[in-house]
Amino acid sequence: MSKTIPKLANPNLDTMPSDFLYHLDINVPNTQDTSDIQQRFGDVRIVCTGGTASRMRELALYMRKVLGVSDPSDPVDLCERGHRYAIYKVGPVLCVSHGVGSSTFSVVLHELLMLVKYARCQDSIFLRIGTCGGLGVPPGTVVVTKDAFNGLLRNEHEIAILGKLVVRPAQFSEDVIRNVMEYGADPKDGFQTISANTMGTDCFYEGQGRTDGAICEYTEKDKMDFLQKCHDMGIRNIEMEASMFASVTKKVGVKAGDVCVTLVNRLEGDQVTITMDQKHEFEQRPFLVVGRYVKKLLQQ
Amino acid sequence: MSKTIPKLANPNLDTMPSDFLYHLDINVPNTQDTSDIQQRFGDVRIVCTGGTASRMRELALYMRKVLGVSDPSDPVDLCERGHRYAIYKVGPVLCVSHGVGSSTFSVVLHELLMLVKYARCQDSIFLRIGTCGGLGVPPGTVVVTKDAFNGLLRNEHEIAILGKLVVRPAQFSEDVIRNVMEYGADPKDGFQTISANTMGTDCFYEGQGRTDGAICEYTEKDKMDFLQKCHDMGIRNIEMEASMFASVTKKVGVKAGDVCVTLVNRLEGDQVTITMDQKHEFEQRPFLVVGRYVKKLLQQ
Repeated sequence: MSKTIPKLANPNLDTMPSDFLYHLDINVPNTQDTSDIQQRFGDVRIVCTGGTASRMRELALYMRKVLGVSDPSDPVDLCERGHRYAIYKVGPVLCVSHGVGSSTFSVVLHELLMLVKYARCQDSIFLRIGTCGGLGVPPGTVVVTKDAFNGLLRNEHEIAILGKLVVRPAQFSEDVIRNVMEYGADPKDGFQTISANTMGTDCFYEGQGRTDGAICEYTEKDKMDFLQKCHDMGIRNIEMEASMFASVTKKVGVKAGDVCVTLVNRLEGDQVTITMDQKHEFEQRPFLVVGRYVKKLLQQ
Repeated sequence: MSKTIPKLANPNLDTMPSDFLYHLDINVPNTQDTSDIQQRFGDVRIVCTGGTASRMRELALYMRKVLGVSDPSDPVDLCERGHRYAIYKVGPVLCVSHGVGSSTFSVVLHELLMLVKYARCQDSIFLRIGTCGGLGVPPGTVVVTKDAFNGLLRNEHEIAILGKLVVRPAQFSEDVIRNVMEYGADPKDGFQTISANTMGTDCFYEGQGRTDGAICEYTEKDKMDFLQKCHDMGIRNIEMEASMFASVTKKVGVKAGDVCVTLVNRLEGDQVTITMDQKHEFEQRPFLVVGRYVKKLLQQ
């Protein structure tokens, strides 16, 4: 199969003389000759993203083990000067923090997509490795997203462009879903890895039907009816990024997947009651699943 | 005038036995007796928020100067264990990072509002101290938001709740705007501080009409027509938080204001071309303005 470099969906990128990926603090002084960027990032195959810098640093350390990279030094944050996101590089794997929710993730996602274009990375795959609420599955379940729904329970993402509402489909790559399940899931893990639908909302409290935020104008019954409706639609986890992530990557033609661990079963309550130690153990689970997938992918 | 403790807009908060402000990693073991929380946070009068942890740390150091707090120690991040947001406390002022955009800000905003309620803080004022793009004003201009518009150019905020679209008005407190302008702005500063409308979008690239993102399906002319239309509506700066921030604080009855410095004049280009040193100098400008306002407020 021929290798492809992402074209993206902006013809201006081929005529702009230079570019500055502002939030990453990465300068592209000459878009016609990006040999410097290619040297630094051209070998990148998989871009892993996740909420916090500390978790992405841990993922980088874990990826060293998975890929057999012997390096006793501390992982270096390649965009520390930008102060907004952290990027760690382990051979062909980037581990990048995106913050909480679609707004912050979309900024770094646009810039990472431009980075892999300028670096001429081949067949890049973007992954999100996150935490989320669960629906009818025990806390600690790993969910690989099939269809991404927005807070309006539509399998799409809405975005205001030039003052008008634009609606785009929000599906992840079927290849990625199949391969993460095939290579990544292992019944011997002691936890479940399932493939199911995901709802991505713009608000953690009202947007996800919680009754314990600063504003709540619905009853417990309204909430449970809503969560049951989500469950009936095959939604098994709720986070704040899936529909934006699926729609942007689909639009630019880059394969992507979303692999999250549930920290709470929302059919049983709103509050996260697991201990920090349990949370930390749960957070390692998507690492395991994605680690096996990445290893297999790089052997092909 | 009698002092008021925020009631918020969720009756459940008065009957929940305990609460855990998850992203702040602050535990409220007994909502009926919050003396511990009151002791730690009850003196808070002003909650300052801004994008990055490093800038909020700098703001904390600056607030020490403004308030005459002599403390040679490093500011302590009170929610470091949460890994998502940073909180610094300088007497009656909190300095809190919120990340990029409404989704991440709304999470910490809900939890901060609950914190000031549990701590029984009186007459709390919430401020955002940010960076933004400018419209027809020179980079380095400080804009105090009047009306907040969303990406659809409406003076409101849209949120999906229980699967349905809910629309809420998005105005900041007239008191706060007037007082920030009266006490905070100083013609001798060498930069302009103006009061004007702000657009808050959910996307930095397409949402703000940039032509240099990973996706762009409009022409330079379409973009300029849009930006001119924004300008005609009195919008002088564009960021990613204003409409959510205005609508949530208005809904719960807490006074709030948004004070941002422009880093680029979008009528002249999309790329941020100022140097890191210039950016750092510009970022101090809202500190100056808000510092004077806070000092005056605390003297009253």
